[in-house]
Amino acid sequence: MRILVLGGDGYLGWPTAIHLSECGHDVAVCDNFARRGYDKEMGVESLVPIAPLDERLTAWREVSGKEIKSYVGDLCDADFTHRMVRDFEPDTIVHFGEQRAAPYSMIDQQHAVYTQTNNVIGNLNVMYAVADFNRDIQIVKLGTMGEYGQPNIDIEEGWIEIEHNGRKDRMIYPKRPGSFYHCSKVHDSTNLEFGCRTWGLRVTDLNQGIVYGAETDETKRDSRLATRYDYDAVFGTVLNRFVIQAVLGHPLTVYGNGSQTRGLINIVDTVECIRLASENPADRGEFRVFNQTTEWKSLNEMAQTVVEQFPGEATISHVDNPRVEAYDHYFKVVHTALESLGLKPTLLSTTLIDHLFEVVDRNRDRVDLAAIPATVKWAQTASELPTTSALAKA
Amino acid sequence: MRILVLGGDGYLGWPTAIHLSECGHDVAVCDNFARRGYDKEMGVESLVPIAPLDERLTAWREVSGKEIKSYVGDLCDADFTHRMVRDFEPDTIVHFGEQRAAPYSMIDQQHAVYTQTNNVIGNLNVMYAVADFNRDIQIVKLGTMGEYGQPNIDIEEGWIEIEHNGRKDRMIYPKRPGSFYHCSKVHDSTNLEFGCRTWGLRVTDLNQGIVYGAETDETKRDSRLATRYDYDAVFGTVLNRFVIQAVLGHPLTVYGNGSQTRGLINIVDTVECIRLASENPADRGEFRVFNQTTEWKSLNEMAQTVVEQFPGEATISHVDNPRVEAYDHYFKVVHTALESLGLKPTLLSTTLIDHLFEVVDRNRDRVDLAAIPATVKWAQTASELPTTSALAKA
Repeated sequence: MRILVLGGDGYLGWPTAIHLSECGHDVAVCDNFARRGYDKEMGVESLVPIAPLDERLTAWREVSGKEIKSYVGDLCDADFTHRMVRDFEPDTIVHFGEQRAAPYSMIDQQHAVYTQTNNVIGNLNVMYAVADFNRDIQIVKLGTMGEYGQPNIDIEEGWIEIEHNGRKDRMIYPKRPGSFYHCSKVHDSTNLEFGCRTWGLRVTDLNQGIVYGAETDETKRDSRLATRYDYDAVFGTVLNRFVIQAVLGHPLTVYGNGSQTRGLINIVDTVECIRLASENPADRGEFRVFNQTTEWKSLNEMAQTVVEQFPGEATISHVDNPRVEAYDHYFKVVHTALESLGLKPTLLSTTLIDHLFEVVDRNRDRVDLAAIPATVKWAQTASELPTTSALAKA
Repeated sequence: MRILVLGGDGYLGWPTAIHLSECGHDVAVCDNFARRGYDKEMGVESLVPIAPLDERLTAWREVSGKEIKSYVGDLCDADFTHRMVRDFEPDTIVHFGEQRAAPYSMIDQQHAVYTQTNNVIGNLNVMYAVADFNRDIQIVKLGTMGEYGQPNIDIEEGWIEIEHNGRKDRMIYPKRPGSFYHCSKVHDSTNLEFGCRTWGLRVTDLNQGIVYGAETDETKRDSRLATRYDYDAVFGTVLNRFVIQAVLGHPLTVYGNGSQTRGLINIVDTVECIRLASENPADRGEFRVFNQTTEWKSLNEMAQTVVEQFPGEATISHVDNPRVEAYDHYFKVVHTALESLGLKPTLLSTTLIDHLFEVVDRNRDRVDLAAIPATVKWAQTASELPTTSALAKA
């Protein structure tokens, strides 16, 4: 199968690309290096050093004997996107190529507008390229569990049967997104569902939980194949941050009362989910939604797990929540579709956390402590950039 | 009350502005004349001649003794939008300032991208200006009944109580938009609901039916106060087109089998709805949705009504439907909120249609027949522009 991975230089795009290549698919990646640019803007770096894309591709060729083609360009450039799709003739397009940090989208007006324009227009261009060139190409699109928000009913997989005043319909599950970034993913889903209805596109929309973990079977094979590990307050995610705080002997900072629950998924499961979705495509005209999450925990539970597992002393500190969200809410997610395709979930375990402790410890001299406190406040229209410090050595 | 009408030079924005002014409010309008530009692009013109904005404002001053301030600029220009809001200090912002034609958004990739960028980013900038300057300002935002699509259950006013697996929540009513334009309005609603939850904005989202009618009490007072009347296949709406076809002795062209049902509202009710929503603002943090429609009819019923009422001979012809939509569907709309605020609906009547026959007859030498057939096809990724003919005299 020919698979084009958009955003193939990113935290998940890269491991997905080499996983699909390892599984025998003919893979190409596309990236405009926006993610590496955000690092420069924020004055931070991945905890784990990452090689440039061309070095990654060379390393993969050396290690696996397999070739991955690369396209460098911006999905918002419609001509580029069209030409790439016509040139590679993919069976499946895996679309990771969006700005993916909620705090980044909430910095100020420019970052909100950038996020929505970049994500929505890039995705529209991918839709047009497929509709124009070959409507049999499946689009496997990365969304987020954060599109759903915190509803008081079970979170179904994208669609819900609603009975109302004695009549019934199968409808799109109502969304309550938690940032302008999350809104942009809802916009994408709205456009994609319309594309399935109107153009007969095949779409799998993956509402992914928070991904944690630093390595996959493929990234481990050579240090040049490593993927990024973000811990800063803008692009880093909660579990990764807790691990760093424990290793460095700082209190684990829990936002608010910590009862907020998040869907989680291990990076190893993420790349496997993408393979399963690609190899089992949606039907023509089908807008298929999978909840790509395997478990959920409150922030308190995550912090507690890290504290208990950490071999030394670790403490928890509650800090003001920069986000606007509910506490003590109901949270139950249906996540059977990917498992029915064969996913064997890798749940958060002591082994996994121990491994993260090692990764952080190995790179502890690269940690910039100034990048950890949350400076982007949801309730404000403009926040300071999280850090403008040069990369400080801890 | 100080009311800023965005898109105040348009079909509805202009009559709304002078209606609010007549009702004693201190009104300003904003426009970038994009709507007049689309006419140039399509090679068509309003059936009813319209005066330039400055002439309209002068005429209104002469006729009413009232002053309306004007701002000329693009809502996508964040600085302009911020400066305007700070300068005028409105209590209410009425937001008509978006590209509002479904067929225009479906012409090709560029028009889809333009529509979504223009609408979503303009609206985001309005939200940021309000959040930044004064969160007490109410945003009265024009949406469309087309956001809902054709669900098999009753269409509630924006929110629906869902009971699922023994639990309940009040959720956003699921949307099934019918074009990239309609999608853009869903995106706006998603962003606005988030803004209410996160910034405590006051928003009234008006899901408006298809507006028909050529005049209001205020536009009638001077020919320079007339508002536009569109009949071309891109910006014209179905009832207006049927009237023109009858008057010119052409068959009324019904798309597909004609069972598709549309919500309708008279222009006189529209301007009154905006007044009612403005004078009875949403609470802080409230995302309030009104279905701004007073009745609904199938295309067949609309065509039949025009045929029966037309004093001469008129016939109906079914043509291929350029849109992708369902036939013979359920359609029932809750529309009690505006009526509970005092709206007295003006239903489609023989008097109203007779009046439209007169308006068309008066301007029949301005009709360009080439502009009437639908050339924008939903299933295609690129359609011909509807007409490139110079304005032809019928």
